[in-house]
Amino acid sequence: MAQPIQTIGLIGKYGDDTVGKDIHRLARYLDRRKLTVVLEDHTAGLLEADEWAHYSMDAIGRHIDLAIVIGGDGTMLHVARQLVDFQVPLVGINLGRLGFLTDIPADDMESAIGRILDGDYETEQRFLLHAEVLRGGKVVHGALALNDVVVNKGELARLIEFETYIDGEFVNSARADGVIVATPTGSTAYALSAGGPIIHPTLAAVVIVPICPHTLSDRPLVVSSDSVIQIVPTELGGQRSYLSFDGQFNFSLTDRDHIYVRRAKHPLTLVHPCGRSHYAVLRAKLQWGGKL
Amino acid sequence: MAQPIQTIGLIGKYGDDTVGKDIHRLARYLDRRKLTVVLEDHTAGLLEADEWAHYSMDAIGRHIDLAIVIGGDGTMLHVARQLVDFQVPLVGINLGRLGFLTDIPADDMESAIGRILDGDYETEQRFLLHAEVLRGGKVVHGALALNDVVVNKGELARLIEFETYIDGEFVNSARADGVIVATPTGSTAYALSAGGPIIHPTLAAVVIVPICPHTLSDRPLVVSSDSVIQIVPTELGGQRSYLSFDGQFNFSLTDRDHIYVRRAKHPLTLVHPCGRSHYAVLRAKLQWGGKL
Amino acid sequence: MAQPIQTIGLIGKYGDDTVGKDIHRLARYLDRRKLTVVLEDHTAGLLEADEWAHYSMDAIGRHIDLAIVIGGDGTMLHVARQLVDFQVPLVGINLGRLGFLTDIPADDMESAIGRILDGDYETEQRFLLHAEVLRGGKVVHGALALNDVVVNKGELARLIEFETYIDGEFVNSARADGVIVATPTGSTAYALSAGGPIIHPTLAAVVIVPICPHTLSDRPLVVSSDSVIQIVPTELGGQRSYLSFDGQFNFSLTDRDHIYVRRAKHPLTLVHPCGRSHYAVLRAKLQWGGKL
Amino acid sequence: MAQPIQTIGLIGKYGDDTVGKDIHRLARYLDRRKLTVVLEDHTAGLLEADEWAHYSMDAIGRHIDLAIVIGGDGTMLHVARQLVDFQVPLVGINLGRLGFLTDIPADDMESAIGRILDGDYETEQRFLLHAEVLRGGKVVHGALALNDVVVNKGELARLIEFETYIDGEFVNSARADGVIVATPTGSTAYALSAGGPIIHPTLAAVVIVPICPHTLSDRPLVVSSDSVIQIVPTELGGQRSYLSFDGQFNFSLTDRDHIYVRRAKHPLTLVHPCGRSHYAVLRAKLQWGGKL
Repeated sequence: MAQPIQTIGLIGKYGDDTVGKDIHRLARYLDRRKLTVVLEDHTAGLLEADEWAHYSMDAIGRHIDLAIVIGGDGTMLHVARQLVDFQVPLVGINLGRLGFLTDIPADDMESAIGRILDGDYETEQRFLLHAEVLRGGKVVHGALALNDVVVNKGELARLIEFETYIDGEFVNSARADGVIVATPTGSTAYALSAGGPIIHPTLAAVVIVPICPHTLSDRPLVVSSDSVIQIVPTELGGQRSYLSFDGQFNFSLTDRDHIYVRRAKHPLTLVHPCGRSHYAVLRAKLQWGGKL
Repeated sequence: MAQPIQTIGLIGKYGDDTVGKDIHRLARYLDRRKLTVVLEDHTAGLLEADEWAHYSMDAIGRHIDLAIVIGGDGTMLHVARQLVDFQVPLVGINLGRLGFLTDIPADDMESAIGRILDGDYETEQRFLLHAEVLRGGKVVHGALALNDVVVNKGELARLIEFETYIDGEFVNSARADGVIVATPTGSTAYALSAGGPIIHPTLAAVVIVPICPHTLSDRPLVVSSDSVIQIVPTELGGQRSYLSFDGQFNFSLTDRDHIYVRRAKHPLTLVHPCGRSHYAVLRAKLQWGGKL
Repeated sequence: MAQPIQTIGLIGKYGDDTVGKDIHRLARYLDRRKLTVVLEDHTAGLLEADEWAHYSMDAIGRHIDLAIVIGGDGTMLHVARQLVDFQVPLVGINLGRLGFLTDIPADDMESAIGRILDGDYETEQRFLLHAEVLRGGKVVHGALALNDVVVNKGELARLIEFETYIDGEFVNSARADGVIVATPTGSTAYALSAGGPIIHPTLAAVVIVPICPHTLSDRPLVVSSDSVIQIVPTELGGQRSYLSFDGQFNFSLTDRDHIYVRRAKHPLTLVHPCGRSHYAVLRAKLQWGGKL
Repeated sequence: MAQPIQTIGLIGKYGDDTVGKDIHRLARYLDRRKLTVVLEDHTAGLLEADEWAHYSMDAIGRHIDLAIVIGGDGTMLHVARQLVDFQVPLVGINLGRLGFLTDIPADDMESAIGRILDGDYETEQRFLLHAEVLRGGKVVHGALALNDVVVNKGELARLIEFETYIDGEFVNSARADGVIVATPTGSTAYALSAGGPIIHPTLAAVVIVPICPHTLSDRPLVVSSDSVIQIVPTELGGQRSYLSFDGQFNFSLTDRDHIYVRRAKHPLTLVHPCGRSHYAVLRAKLQWGGKL
């Protein structure tokens, strides 16, 4: 993380008015620490006060040393995709419910942010995926995902069919509701619900998880994050399929599109106060058994 | 099954021209046995000859003693829903790939149908589900399913939320891709892919299977087929959800629709040559181990 | 339940001294209600006082109108197998942790037992399984289970092989750690951990769940509780296998033993204060989502 | 692989007389190619001829350039653990059923071995695990595994309880039938049956898979193969637990033993004729769908 931290961007949960007062409180706290606070344009609209400059997300990316995101994991996913190429580190503050990415409770935020500003922090890198759609040899879509890239059937409860290739080698053809390509970060999200394993965030691996596969031996595959994963969906009986990024936006696929998923160019840097335990978060979120 | 069998309806796979010659062959065979053959309207269009009367599906239902369906399990599902209330027994002939419902190979059909016509047959009853959608206290949709009724998210890879009630008693609220209510017949279809058990066809039970549930302890529930199952979906962030019947047609749900699923009034009668083994079909379809 | 209730048997968790004072408290309460209290022999040893008669479990079975079991689900399983043939109804009191069978907390026991004695109760029937081992045509072992009968590998992490038959019909051969035959009552115990569904207690069904099967399409089977389930294990490389009843006791199997599992002759009667909700217990035990 | 290959060791499936003639055939073929053939002591006993020298496994390890193993994956696991520290490369020949490690059919062995001897081969490295048991601070057992190290309950169908630590950090406590720590090689063996993912052989990762866990959110964990995994089992009610290596041998655990699992010092080198496809083996073994 660039030192010293001078300019901090604050980004709140999209469309959530209740987050305004937490942001206000945090901005005042940063003022008192003589730091420059800038708000993301939309976030500025959540506050009654207008003491702080506000910018577009891109301008934010160019000007800040640290972004503090106040919301839930969904907000972090959105901001991470927007800011990753600016290589701005992120801190996540949750609004009541502990998140995998937002592990600082809003109640405690001045203390936790204070510790980080005092230099008592750890950083960790999370890689993203970049997926491209080739249609007739041309790239027709490309986007980033921090959790997962998902090829998904449409609204009918009917299977889609697709072939999977890894580094150009044919793996199998499958009939399923779809298939998830997830990062370690995404392994505790949709991929987990679909039967995938939990992958340690530092492991350079991705997991490919079929969703409700017709062939019951079609199981999650864990491969190196250096791999290029290619999915070739086939429409069945006019059923459409879709490509989803972090479950937040969609691209509509057509027959014989080729989807290529690779590790994205830049990793994301997450900042935590020292002493955060990855497994403590898992225990809390998954209601695992504590020490005997 | 009504005796003697005099009038037989033939129904082929929708839109599949290749099935015409098998139907022709079968109709000739039935002619030779002095039986009255009628074709379903659309099926008649698959044949070059026009020696046989053809009727709408409804008229077929009113006039025949036995329906022979040539296609796959998908065709049987479609025909079963159409004919069940006419209490016409069904025989299923598959076109190459063994089905759970279509267990007579086309190559062998004269011999198998011959045995049935000679009285060497067994019948079994399969119940269907009837699902209704209540919106603001009024029934806005109702339909039958032989395999399953599915509440399903739309095209975004994002969870829907719903409450489940059984016989009026609250079971739980869940976040998932959707939920399947399946008959024993449907327990080897989509419900199996989603993690449900295989239910013996004669058991008076339905299974409720969450699809990729966020709460990992949200597991398939098997309850009496006398139960009334109520699903109340909630839209999340504008995401739509859908009600699918046998994966073949859809109804678009809105927030706070109430879906009621019950056993349908009439069961379906399936006819097989004697000696069919349910477990032999399972072994073949699921590639289970044979005798040691 | 026989009326009026006059003689009540109290049975405590085996070998748990701490349960003595709860039993004492409950016995005093029943004395005040002018009922005859008898203790099971071992339970009597858990109390310091010796004001109450004590009998063997068999004698208890012959003389009481109602048994109150204080312990956990394990104690209930044990007592249920011992008393079921005397057709004595059971009430279960838990010592701190809610059980599926012991749903009255000890803190609240006078009030709950009081309501039952006042006639404000519901009963439900739970069937048990009876398993017999045939060796060379002779029955060499037979016992009851309320939760499950399990064929299990020994201590090596190596598969056993077995054939399954239902009502004399061959189902499949499988290689697995073992196989569970569970009642609806047992469907929330070991069978659930092994991937089985949750079966409603009133459904006349059993579930057959393979444990870690080598063939991934080897899935739980739900069949009528009228079925006779036959398991024929085969030793592999000298590995032994075992038959467990409710996970509480074992019988050592040899090559080509035939195990027959059937519904036991008598069902168990459980007594609850009115208003108990089966799904509320499931929600609490499985940490499911409550009403939205 | 050391060049040129001059001395080749042949090792057959333990106790399988039928393998003798295949070994004989292969030894003659190697004679014709002017190579020195040595047999492992026990393997020599499977042949009628005694033209070739035979040695103990250790002596074999010191003297050969390449070991050819004729048997199944079980034989390969055994030989791999014995020879890995001698850094002798292995080729696996199967006797009828394709294995993950024995991918050359015996029928085809002269041709495949011939290609390897001609230099038309690929090598791949597979890491092993080394597990140690600490009791009262002293190492009381240590051994290697190529597939998996398993902590396992004994013969009663009753849970064991254990804590897991990764790199000294507490992960969770669990109640289960046991827990598997598997290499990528072992991810297609027992770990797969217990619900683990398939891990690519080149990935530097291990997977920790709970066996039938009581807590349903207790899911497979994939972590770096640099990690030290520590399991601390607790006996429950006198139930014993065991440590298994590749499912082939056992060590009996006592209460509060500490088990440490690490990547072993030396990797194994497997040799294949060029053109082997990892995914083709998976497709064949798991009956996945081929190209559309």
